Amino acid sequence: MNEKLILITNDDGVRAKGLSELIAVARQFARVVVVAPDGARSGQSNAITMTAPLYKRLLVQEQNLTVYECTGTPTDCVKMALNHILDRKPDVLLSGINHGSNSSVNVIYSGTMGAVLEGCSQEIPSVGFSLNDHSPEADFSAFRPYVSMFIERVMCQSLPQGVCLNINAPVGEIKGVRVCSQSKGHWVEEFDARQNPHGQPYYWMTGQFRNAEPDNTSTDEWALDNGYVSVVPTTCDLTHYASLAWLKNSGYEQIK
Amino acid sequence: MNEKLILITNDDGVRAKGLSELIAVARQFARVVVVAPDGARSGQSNAITMTAPLYKRLLVQEQNLTVYECTGTPTDCVKMALNHILDRKPDVLLSGINHGSNSSVNVIYSGTMGAVLEGCSQEIPSVGFSLNDHSPEADFSAFRPYVSMFIERVMCQSLPQGVCLNINAPVGEIKGVRVCSQSKGHWVEEFDARQNPHGQPYYWMTGQFRNAEPDNTSTDEWALDNGYVSVVPTTCDLTHYASLAWLKNSGYEQIK
Repeated sequence: MNEKLILITNDDGVRAKGLSELIAVARQFARVVVVAPDGARSGQSNAITMTAPLYKRLLVQEQNLTVYECTGTPTDCVKMALNHILDRKPDVLLSGINHGSNSSVNVIYSGTMGAVLEGCSQEIPSVGFSLNDHSPEADFSAFRPYVSMFIERVMCQSLPQGVCLNINAPVGEIKGVRVCSQSKGHWVEEFDARQNPHGQPYYWMTGQFRNAEPDNTSTDEWALDNGYVSVVPTTCDLTHYASLAWLKNSGYEQIK
Repeated sequence: MNEKLILITNDDGVRAKGLSELIAVARQFARVVVVAPDGARSGQSNAITMTAPLYKRLLVQEQNLTVYECTGTPTDCVKMALNHILDRKPDVLLSGINHGSNSSVNVIYSGTMGAVLEGCSQEIPSVGFSLNDHSPEADFSAFRPYVSMFIERVMCQSLPQGVCLNINAPVGEIKGVRVCSQSKGHWVEEFDARQNPHGQPYYWMTGQFRNAEPDNTSTDEWALDNGYVSVVPTTCDLTHYASLAWLKNSGYEQIK
């Protein structure tokens, strides 16, 4: 029998509760190899480490579970796993479970989803899981059976080529699952000005998310706000195909 | 007359030649405010700084040009500019000119394009410029008149909502402009193992890009390889709309 192999990473670091939850579920289906950052890498997007070397450390070596920590970003972890640690391509890549949602435009900042997009670019069926609760002690129990069913589904059925999944869960009771588009939205930041002990001003960036389409029931934000798990088919091909004709008709190819 | 305002950033840092080239061209069209990283931030994608404060420093204050350096990522720079430095939304956001191309899947790793996607999420017409030459002394002279024409075009005509541009130029003579899709491709990494002076192994990540569709003449990789400037309409909405129906038909909404 061909043993299945699942690669797992996250952006909250190898000690995060959400990672342990995901490992526990995934082990029911396959041999699991974890390559996760050695600490928090939230907001690291698809960042890669270019000017520093990477270190790795083996933490767990059991029959069906191997865990490494790595000093890099989530995307570095995936690259190190695929090109240096694993002896074959994994059947599935999972990332999370993130402490905090990665719905709407947050997909572009998320280290969790950065790892998923990396897997997608490598043509591995890849899924990111996030719970809308930033607490380190977040309660994943209501989400856990859904995570299990999504993993089973993707293991059996795979995903369309070039497509990964961004799956987010609300806190508390879950009403069901909605297949959604990424809600339009953006962040409005505030810069909290302080002074360091040497008299120099510095700024903490904090922000508030603004959902640009709160009444659109087909979006991930609406699903989360209304007690549903959101599943957004996501791609690392950022081409806006509908605008190719607009640019050509606007004379862009005549520029010289 | 309503004075036009252009915001500029990059990922090679405020001292990069490509930034100076972009500033020189942009100043012909508008008042320019630069908020750029204080050093190299290549490969920073849409990373944001969450666990450290940011510093900024005013470097230049002339009649039509203001330059700040910031300790953050390119995306941090845009957020600091929009929410803390500028007194109004800029008419256009420009990023680059990057030393090195950001074609194909490199768009997801690029700090240059991270800044552009941030501008796009804020509904600012945003354009990233990159030259396919990593040298710090790269020759931008053949690209410069094109950069000028693209800026003029976007200032006059704007861009479709939710769309930004990823513009890449080949080295040497330019044959013209092609409106393209992002070529499918991925990186195969190598991990160069070394030992630090304390006997610990560490790894330098280096990679090679593999173009998955070298014969597709409608891609940015093909354009660059054949002497054309590539213009890819790009979006921060990562939803793969064509797969919404597949997921629904596959029973994802029946999972419980």
